[in-house]
Amino acid sequence: MEVMTSTHTNGSALLKSSAITTNGYHNGNSNHRKGVTAHDNGRKLLEGSSNSLEPGWFSEFSPLWPGEAFSLKIEKLLFQGKSDYQDVMLFESATYGKVLTLDGAIQHTENGGFPYTEMIVHLPLGSIPSPKKVLIIGGGIGFTLFEVLRYPTIENIDIVEIDDVVVDVSRKFFPYLAANFNDPRVTMVLGDGAAFVKAAKAGYYDAIIVDSSDPIGPAKDLFERPFFEAVAKALRPGGVVCTQAESIWLHMHIIKQIIANCRQVFKGSVNYAWTTVPTYPTGVIGYMLCSTEGPEVDFKNPVNPIDKATAHIKSELGPLKFYNSDIHKAAFILPSFAASLIES
Amino acid sequence: MEVMTSTHTNGSALLKSSAITTNGYHNGNSNHRKGVTAHDNGRKLLEGSSNSLEPGWFSEFSPLWPGEAFSLKIEKLLFQGKSDYQDVMLFESATYGKVLTLDGAIQHTENGGFPYTEMIVHLPLGSIPSPKKVLIIGGGIGFTLFEVLRYPTIENIDIVEIDDVVVDVSRKFFPYLAANFNDPRVTMVLGDGAAFVKAAKAGYYDAIIVDSSDPIGPAKDLFERPFFEAVAKALRPGGVVCTQAESIWLHMHIIKQIIANCRQVFKGSVNYAWTTVPTYPTGVIGYMLCSTEGPEVDFKNPVNPIDKATAHIKSELGPLKFYNSDIHKAAFILPSFAASLIES
Repeated sequence: MEVMTSTHTNGSALLKSSAITTNGYHNGNSNHRKGVTAHDNGRKLLEGSSNSLEPGWFSEFSPLWPGEAFSLKIEKLLFQGKSDYQDVMLFESATYGKVLTLDGAIQHTENGGFPYTEMIVHLPLGSIPSPKKVLIIGGGIGFTLFEVLRYPTIENIDIVEIDDVVVDVSRKFFPYLAANFNDPRVTMVLGDGAAFVKAAKAGYYDAIIVDSSDPIGPAKDLFERPFFEAVAKALRPGGVVCTQAESIWLHMHIIKQIIANCRQVFKGSVNYAWTTVPTYPTGVIGYMLCSTEGPEVDFKNPVNPIDKATAHIKSELGPLKFYNSDIHKAAFILPSFAASLIES
Repeated sequence: MEVMTSTHTNGSALLKSSAITTNGYHNGNSNHRKGVTAHDNGRKLLEGSSNSLEPGWFSEFSPLWPGEAFSLKIEKLLFQGKSDYQDVMLFESATYGKVLTLDGAIQHTENGGFPYTEMIVHLPLGSIPSPKKVLIIGGGIGFTLFEVLRYPTIENIDIVEIDDVVVDVSRKFFPYLAANFNDPRVTMVLGDGAAFVKAAKAGYYDAIIVDSSDPIGPAKDLFERPFFEAVAKALRPGGVVCTQAESIWLHMHIIKQIIANCRQVFKGSVNYAWTTVPTYPTGVIGYMLCSTEGPEVDFKNPVNPIDKATAHIKSELGPLKFYNSDIHKAAFILPSFAASLIES
């Protein structure tokens, strides 16, 4: 696996913003991208790659949630293309602002995705004192990075995004997020997250955040035991990992497998947390929070309450919208049916 | 307003189960019911009353959540009819068991609706010692009643359902729930909940549970101040009410209005709680929990932990699937954006 590295200093040829035009026409010369003309009314939006329940609407079908589908009215298609890895689409929705989908699954919405992002960052980073070195796997749009940068102790953040088209979309449509790729503390890596972690220096990171899509498609390796073993090795003693860990309503079999893997690999603590996201299937998403052997990490009682530290936060980040210390603690409280399955 | 009372002892002419046949054909002779032939493949399912994004699927459109819609694949249409008050539909879904919709909005799903029902009952009844007299407004299918009956101290439960067709559906398709209508402690009233409460004996109830649909259609009055005033009057000192109070993502304007009304009416305490329901819009639902002047009620710290009292619970009810004392406490912890709006 070749890992292509593009640091913040040059932006790299791959990330030229001219590769995407404002109407979504993809006229770059890289032959792995299949350009699709945007139709602003959405009527021909999904032809060829997936399907919609109605013209002008996006509908989220997946074998991961058979028999149900969430749909959003499309105000304007902003981008649609096929990368080496997946279908990438960005549209302006009627109610949730810009919506990013990968292989037909909603990854982020501007006005409804912030619980996911705030929690995947602040659950782990709020649980350790003074996070300095952080690795983000996935998250190529930049929402996760945005939240990590709230911590004044940060010295170095590596982001490993497998799909350059996602980063292109960020540079074109989320310039306030992509601007952070140029922060001197940030290194953007275009490549495979599992391979990157395997090659990382042992004991280097304080925290690793796995902002992955579902375990079908390019993120599949990020749910397997060899990946968790590499993560544990790359973390310092008492370091923490937070991975996206699906829905208690839909994916208990996946969750149980992740937990079984993590219990074998992480010798500190292993915890499952969850939160609500209005635009995700069943309205919830879970996280695995694990620590390596070393200084004890009590994830359920944050030691680094970022919501109280507003004086130290760059004002342009704006206030946290979802996360606070009480929400942090409550994220570990499970409904009875889930607790009995997860704790067994 | 005429309030028709049908006690458990005779079942009443209105509630003859012969009014509904198993294929959904509505051949009763009451002229307010418009029979609709069921098509098991769902293709013509919603003609005339609402619309579907695709044949064979139910799609939940509403002016209360414009620009988004949740859809479920229909395995079998069980009932469809128009009552005096609303469109009533019951179908077997691919993933959530039987699904009840009123005016095109999902009210309950067998396999995903239990968080709503357990919380609307146990948040109030878990907060007071020894609940004896309980009023349920709405809830004519019987899920709410099922949960109230877990409390061994119960002496009298009145249920006021405005729509007899909903009760008919329960008797035909949920006989294990409808059986509880015949419990000697239960009185089923067919009529208007607001009128019933207004006429109720002052100070009679320990708890009132308002299991309403959204504030458009027949449940509109249940969100207005005169209704809350009647509720306060019907409760004993230190009595409690729990009302369905919408989604923090979609309906903050409605929630703020309900809270403003409740703060003026209830002189004990006024609280907002929320929980997750996989088949509701945005995946969450809220509750208003208020108490009247009298013995103090601290809703955030349950005094009557039903989840611990399994020895006293009729075994046929089965264990609680969602609710426990920790989930109870966590329900009052709000995301920062909601807390700032609700507490202001």
